[in-house]
Amino acid sequence: MPLPQPVYYPPFNITRSSHVIMTSRDLAASRAFYEQVVGLVLSDHDADTLYFRGLEEVCHHSLVVKRRSNTQCEAIGFRVLTEEELEKAAHFFKAKGLTTRWIEVPYQGRTLSVIDPSGTPVHFCATMQTKPRLYTQFENFKGGAAMRFDHYQVPVPDVQAQTDFYAEMGLRISEYMALDDKLLVAFMFRKPGTQDIVFLENPGPRLHHFAYTVSDSHSILRACDVAGNVGMGDVVERGPGRHGPSGVLFVYLRAWSCSVITIY
Amino acid sequence: MPLPQPVYYPPFNITRSSHVIMTSRDLAASRAFYEQVVGLVLSDHDADTLYFRGLEEVCHHSLVVKRRSNTQCEAIGFRVLTEEELEKAAHFFKAKGLTTRWIEVPYQGRTLSVIDPSGTPVHFCATMQTKPRLYTQFENFKGGAAMRFDHYQVPVPDVQAQTDFYAEMGLRISEYMALDDKLLVAFMFRKPGTQDIVFLENPGPRLHHFAYTVSDSHSILRACDVAGNVGMGDVVERGPGRHGPSGVLFVYLRAWSCSVITIY
Amino acid sequence: MPLPQPVYYPPFNITRSSHVIMTSRDLAASRAFYEQVVGLVLSDHDADTLYFRGLEEVCHHSLVVKRRSNTQCEAIGFRVLTEEELEKAAHFFKAKGLTTRWIEVPYQGRTLSVIDPSGTPVHFCATMQTKPRLYTQFENFKGGAAMRFDHYQVPVPDVQAQTDFYAEMGLRISEYMALDDKLLVAFMFRKPGTQDIVFLENPGPRLHHFAYTVSDSHSILRACDVAGNVGMGDVVERGPGRHGPSGVLFVYLRAWSCSVITIY
Amino acid sequence: MPLPQPVYYPPFNITRSSHVIMTSRDLAASRAFYEQVVGLVLSDHDADTLYFRGLEEVCHHSLVVKRRSNTQCEAIGFRVLTEEELEKAAHFFKAKGLTTRWIEVPYQGRTLSVIDPSGTPVHFCATMQTKPRLYTQFENFKGGAAMRFDHYQVPVPDVQAQTDFYAEMGLRISEYMALDDKLLVAFMFRKPGTQDIVFLENPGPRLHHFAYTVSDSHSILRACDVAGNVGMGDVVERGPGRHGPSGVLFVYLRAWSCSVITIY
Repeated sequence: MPLPQPVYYPPFNITRSSHVIMTSRDLAASRAFYEQVVGLVLSDHDADTLYFRGLEEVCHHSLVVKRRSNTQCEAIGFRVLTEEELEKAAHFFKAKGLTTRWIEVPYQGRTLSVIDPSGTPVHFCATMQTKPRLYTQFENFKGGAAMRFDHYQVPVPDVQAQTDFYAEMGLRISEYMALDDKLLVAFMFRKPGTQDIVFLENPGPRLHHFAYTVSDSHSILRACDVAGNVGMGDVVERGPGRHGPSGVLFVYLRAWSCSVITIY
Repeated sequence: MPLPQPVYYPPFNITRSSHVIMTSRDLAASRAFYEQVVGLVLSDHDADTLYFRGLEEVCHHSLVVKRRSNTQCEAIGFRVLTEEELEKAAHFFKAKGLTTRWIEVPYQGRTLSVIDPSGTPVHFCATMQTKPRLYTQFENFKGGAAMRFDHYQVPVPDVQAQTDFYAEMGLRISEYMALDDKLLVAFMFRKPGTQDIVFLENPGPRLHHFAYTVSDSHSILRACDVAGNVGMGDVVERGPGRHGPSGVLFVYLRAWSCSVITIY
Repeated sequence: MPLPQPVYYPPFNITRSSHVIMTSRDLAASRAFYEQVVGLVLSDHDADTLYFRGLEEVCHHSLVVKRRSNTQCEAIGFRVLTEEELEKAAHFFKAKGLTTRWIEVPYQGRTLSVIDPSGTPVHFCATMQTKPRLYTQFENFKGGAAMRFDHYQVPVPDVQAQTDFYAEMGLRISEYMALDDKLLVAFMFRKPGTQDIVFLENPGPRLHHFAYTVSDSHSILRACDVAGNVGMGDVVERGPGRHGPSGVLFVYLRAWSCSVITIY
Repeated sequence: MPLPQPVYYPPFNITRSSHVIMTSRDLAASRAFYEQVVGLVLSDHDADTLYFRGLEEVCHHSLVVKRRSNTQCEAIGFRVLTEEELEKAAHFFKAKGLTTRWIEVPYQGRTLSVIDPSGTPVHFCATMQTKPRLYTQFENFKGGAAMRFDHYQVPVPDVQAQTDFYAEMGLRISEYMALDDKLLVAFMFRKPGTQDIVFLENPGPRLHHFAYTVSDSHSILRACDVAGNVGMGDVVERGPGRHGPSGVLFVYLRAWSCSVITIY
């Protein structure tokens, strides 16, 4: 099992995982869950779309929820340093034989869409419109008072191949699990910390969960307490608990079929 | 300095310090402060009176604020076990040569009013109307989310005399400070814990502060954070800090001329 | 299902549930668990007995663990106000046809032992030797930093009979659960709060758990974290979570066959 | 007051502020303070030097304390991405007419030393020896349980010139304060967040403080509590409180003449 070497000078500069696009059958229920229990802020919405950001976030959205007949993840999103890096990214993916598209996404700068080798839809952009950071409006905090988008976990059948590919893009490994010579789990990061994206051997691609950070253990307990009291107690799927790898305090809140949020 | 002996079988059974009656020049400002920063619940109000209780409290009020031209404490209140104890109390005070009055107080059962030997107005009652406890309505918590009325501190010129008198009523000493043979501070309790009432040598009688308990250190920080963000940052008078005697984590929030709240 | 009426003037004055006597096959393991994970202080020990108290407690012990070939509860303990109350208690139990014994217990004042109608062994005493309170020695806190003994839960087959009997002794009901006309659970208290003893319909008598209070939610998380890291992760049986009745944040830590600790 | 433009492609890649080198008259007192109150881990020491790291840190040290006749800051340290970046840094500084030196620092890779235009001594290195991360050894946490080195604040007479210079090195401004056209304070960052280095108009260069992050508000309170109980209560200089810019919860702990630590 050869772990890929760190690539310090990658072909383009991803700064962090930045957002996910989810779908939902019931936007009203999604809004109630993300606002009241998770504590996200609704930046904007129209009849069929909700745009949320965390309390510390200045960028327009880190979670988009679209009305659809099923609930799943439509794409995961990365931020790159500048518009110039988007061009380098497009060049990189083309050289890999992957199909790229420039797409229009409301509130975002120029956005590159690609299907990665595992089949996961990924968006890249360098800029978003900005909104005020709300992290000192304590009197308006709700539920878990989620602060910042942190990472997503993507089950894939071939963790080694996926890890090798993302390593080429400059993501580095912080933790991994292997059985004999087989890589089963890889935590990969660009921003300082343990992870921007986690790969886990399982049928996929799909989204296992995405995670927001909170500022204090109290917020994790408060998210659960509010969930219980507003009639959403069954969203608390696992935890509060602490992961061995990364040492992070977490709770998994699962709303409907496949969206999951880890607060930590 | 002879400390009074514990009186295990007092002439009547006080169960705890239970409430204070304050006056205020500006009821709207008082309401904003107690609701938003301290996190009390408004049980009832009329044009000239506000009745507050803590989130855990089932009794109608632990803080009454009346519109007056100045801000001060009108009376401190104790709860006794039963109506029968009120009669015993009246008998006790009369035997001491103190003048007692039966007064009508909205939402309270029969209430005995007396001026104690230091000149402090004290109310005693056995019952109040009840309201729902709100301690699991986490989504409505505000500011410090004050839970229960805990104690008051009353400066008096003669701490020894005051302590001796309250000891006769069954209050016991948990902590005290003395200089040479002179008693300067006495912490006295009926309910388990460190204090229901604290006497401190100083011109008086007046009210130094009254205190509510909170469930977590986080609530103390939140009270300060909210105060700062809603334009009441100057109410944070001292702390957050920790007292040596009682070991309690506190913050003193002073609103206007003389009302002070310790959250701990 | 007639709930017993509150008895405000009981035949003798229990002030609170104060301690339990447990047995253990492995005193070294018991000591490691209670000191490192729960954070109790070892007040004294001999070859076959451990005496623990909480960080805030001044009395010698609230938990006694004796070396035996099995792990179970030997007795639960209540505190009464004065030695005089012990005499009244003995009188009360004799009038009920129960057998009482005066027993010698190290570090305790005169102690009355009785088997209650459900078969539960109960000890009553008015005094214990004292030790320093350690609640400001923050640098020595361990694990959950348990502060004060709070209550025990005793499964019994006939909750109604048990509740009626304890009500006669002055314990009052704060919460209960019933199915049709049958009382299934009763929370009873003497000290202010929700419970000193909880009865639950189940084969018994035996001890379901005993509980200590902690000062902050952080302590509950810390107890679990320490348990996990010192190789006792499997003691975390349930939680962290929050009970509906009493609204208390808890974790159940179960060490060996039957001792359980709720920290809250 | 022209704020410098962000430099997205700087001449060399600083990843973060990483360490400080302090001097102390009393190493024993320094050790006690940083271990017991701040909660740092002593990675190594010799007769005249202490090397500390935070609980999450894998690199050998983020704080070096050397025995000297006075207490001051000897240098601040930045980490760069690779050894190659060190060469680029040397080239950059020479082009600016600054004198650079390659120095030997125990436990560090090749280290570049330079005096910046304000007169501040700055060290750059790409690697350090590593030690185990200790962030899950909860049972050994002490005091504030400081996790990671975060930033330093450097008073300088000319904030504009200093900010312009560091902007050229790729540090970007997150917050600033200005009076009329004069820049008074600049918060600059490389890693995601509010600051790696803060400049403040004041006589200098010197070190105002350096800061570690903690994982929870509880750690800030615990640092103060331990300080008070082990006889170092006077190190608590300011706070606990919250900064407006960055919204960070903090406490300033000042030990001896000029070293200060902000925990947040």
